[in-house]
Amino acid sequence: MNKHSGNTFRDGIGEIGEKVSIMKPSVYFRWIFTQMTVSTFSGQSIAESIRLLREKRPLVHCLTNEVVQEITANVLLAAGASPAMVVAEEEAPFFAGVAGGLLINIGTPYPARLRAMHSSVDAARSAGHPWVLDPVAAGGIPWRDGIISEFVEKHPDVIRGNASEILALSGTKSGGKGVDSTDSSDAAIEAAERLARKIEGVVCVTGETDYITDGERTIAVKGGHPMATLVVGTGCSLSALVSAFCAITEDRVLATASACALAKKAAEKAIETARGPGSFHNEYLDALYTLQPEDFL
Amino acid sequence: MNKHSGNTFRDGIGEIGEKVSIMKPSVYFRWIFTQMTVSTFSGQSIAESIRLLREKRPLVHCLTNEVVQEITANVLLAAGASPAMVVAEEEAPFFAGVAGGLLINIGTPYPARLRAMHSSVDAARSAGHPWVLDPVAAGGIPWRDGIISEFVEKHPDVIRGNASEILALSGTKSGGKGVDSTDSSDAAIEAAERLARKIEGVVCVTGETDYITDGERTIAVKGGHPMATLVVGTGCSLSALVSAFCAITEDRVLATASACALAKKAAEKAIETARGPGSFHNEYLDALYTLQPEDFL
Amino acid sequence: MNKHSGNTFRDGIGEIGEKVSIMKPSVYFRWIFTQMTVSTFSGQSIAESIRLLREKRPLVHCLTNEVVQEITANVLLAAGASPAMVVAEEEAPFFAGVAGGLLINIGTPYPARLRAMHSSVDAARSAGHPWVLDPVAAGGIPWRDGIISEFVEKHPDVIRGNASEILALSGTKSGGKGVDSTDSSDAAIEAAERLARKIEGVVCVTGETDYITDGERTIAVKGGHPMATLVVGTGCSLSALVSAFCAITEDRVLATASACALAKKAAEKAIETARGPGSFHNEYLDALYTLQPEDFL
Repeated sequence: MNKHSGNTFRDGIGEIGEKVSIMKPSVYFRWIFTQMTVSTFSGQSIAESIRLLREKRPLVHCLTNEVVQEITANVLLAAGASPAMVVAEEEAPFFAGVAGGLLINIGTPYPARLRAMHSSVDAARSAGHPWVLDPVAAGGIPWRDGIISEFVEKHPDVIRGNASEILALSGTKSGGKGVDSTDSSDAAIEAAERLARKIEGVVCVTGETDYITDGERTIAVKGGHPMATLVVGTGCSLSALVSAFCAITEDRVLATASACALAKKAAEKAIETARGPGSFHNEYLDALYTLQPEDFL
Repeated sequence: MNKHSGNTFRDGIGEIGEKVSIMKPSVYFRWIFTQMTVSTFSGQSIAESIRLLREKRPLVHCLTNEVVQEITANVLLAAGASPAMVVAEEEAPFFAGVAGGLLINIGTPYPARLRAMHSSVDAARSAGHPWVLDPVAAGGIPWRDGIISEFVEKHPDVIRGNASEILALSGTKSGGKGVDSTDSSDAAIEAAERLARKIEGVVCVTGETDYITDGERTIAVKGGHPMATLVVGTGCSLSALVSAFCAITEDRVLATASACALAKKAAEKAIETARGPGSFHNEYLDALYTLQPEDFL
Repeated sequence: MNKHSGNTFRDGIGEIGEKVSIMKPSVYFRWIFTQMTVSTFSGQSIAESIRLLREKRPLVHCLTNEVVQEITANVLLAAGASPAMVVAEEEAPFFAGVAGGLLINIGTPYPARLRAMHSSVDAARSAGHPWVLDPVAAGGIPWRDGIISEFVEKHPDVIRGNASEILALSGTKSGGKGVDSTDSSDAAIEAAERLARKIEGVVCVTGETDYITDGERTIAVKGGHPMATLVVGTGCSLSALVSAFCAITEDRVLATASACALAKKAAEKAIETARGPGSFHNEYLDALYTLQPEDFL
């Protein structure tokens, strides 16, 4: 390990220099994680975001799938935000104008919910509030892909997905097995950058390493633990957390990286005492709550 | 602390004398909790309610919001009742005539579910079974406020809400931030009493102290722990527990106070070993299960 | 205890000889569990099924009730399968053709979801994929009974229910209290055998002992712990687990018995450290994850 990389590896966050972005990802990342010495987002920036989250406790309006509503609310509460699931088309757009951030998760879409989602996105955009798209299982089901495209065309502030989903959205290839990724996040970096430029927003591809890009600068957040993939909703609730950080931070790349860094460090703390996915779930929520800004310095 | 207050403070339940109800709540409650010597509901009454709950295991029909269905069922099971979520308009009213108690929670309303709720309320009333209204986020969204009003006009046996919700329902002022209260329960006592007289039922305003009133007598239940507010559904599931106790106890004030006392003591037991909201959730369920009637004596 | 019964009692799985099936169940089972010496499914077979499950990680398409979606996904993930809840009628049948197994759980039916369920069943049958029916609360609500009958007529590969549900489905008698069984599984064996012959599939009646039958051979799986009945969704998620095993094993009786054996052993492991239903839930998920094939030898 490079002697200059101490700080980067301790906080697990580093910027990928544009000059090396022509390398093939797989080669590049073997290199970057032994050589990386540049870090845009210091632990200090992440710590400041977390401090701000807990001070402001932003209200996050979640239109998410049927399976993960409880863990999504609990992740937001544990981390320091305030969740609200206002889902009827009759009231969701009103609430989107009130809440600090909006999450649209396409895990279990159906017509009435989709109408609520679209009107909420429109209301959030009118109010100037950020919204995050979680394109669950993109590339796997034709009907759903059409739905997701309609949301992508509305320029989400952030898209958060796994590698298979981001690859599918960028048109590179379709993949995934149900809601699980069959691709490594490393393989989706170029796709993410291309997609980010297209939506003029931020794309976050999560996996063993999370990559956050606005199409120009790309940040890597390392860490976490694969046990998180055995608890349903850890990915979906991360998208909600991204929305919470976006509600308090203008810099969407920093906001998204802060959410990823908090989730990964919480997973690392959780695995210290977890004996399986059941205890991991609780330890993860406990860690989101007990982690302090200074733990990221 | 007053030497006569031992029992009251041990079980945390006391009646507020009507003679002092002209005092401003904030002043009054500072006084009542240092001076209170009157206790209508002895720990003995609460213990007897809990004993009866576990003997009868009442079937509680829950029409609640999308986010909290699992914790609601688990809270009822742990405490000693039997939950059932029969939600389609085609079958909900039939089931409301069979179940011992009914919960109507307006957390995620939409037209089909609202039709099921209304017909279930009508069926429960025809059968003479108690029903509890949880007016989630009352005062926050105009469309929802219209919906909640329609249920209030059907005279719920009990309304259980936080201070912002009860204040909004009584017309005092609107408040709340999403589903969270921004007001102290102490500030909502008069509003609760007025609302109770209007519905000719019981109103329970929960918070640091829970107040239960039928408009004439008002009971305070102290205790609990704020960590409960970081677990989604602890309030919503308390409303289900109120419905369970109402199914076995004619005295609705005692039934509601018993539910509050059980929930608060379970929270106190949970916090002894919880390290955050994840472990608190489980410890809370464990405590609802392990607490015995004699723990309230 | 019979000296030959060691292996049977260690793995808790034994076949009920047809020759004794004319005995009254209650008498018969007192006998069988002290005398049983025949075991078709050795621990070896169960172990092999579990090994195969983890190797293949089958994708299970779950159309289940609103209350238990999270625990159902988490049980599948912990055990080694891959859950997906694709619920809209517009996409569910497409996905049923892709997934390895399908679960239909009638816990909270309503028209749109029922259309998705029917078209998914049709798609799974066309693709030759197994599907499992969980007839929640059969016998309790007339409208629901009509719905369940329509699915029974489509010949599920497996029906998994409690004794009251299986008795109701076989026309023996209706029972149950909401979603809970009021009958012992022992009392439903003949009903299960009759129903299995009718659907030309497998019927699994769960309880203190689980019985799995194709109408000709009947397997008993003993063990487990009643605390599981205080966690909502342990039964529903077992049906999902049955679907997962059916996706990788042609022998539906073995597949179903493997799911039951895994669930029962996980419950036994969970109760060792659980202090109530909250901690049991997590310990159960941890045990599903940590149990290894060799634990069944």
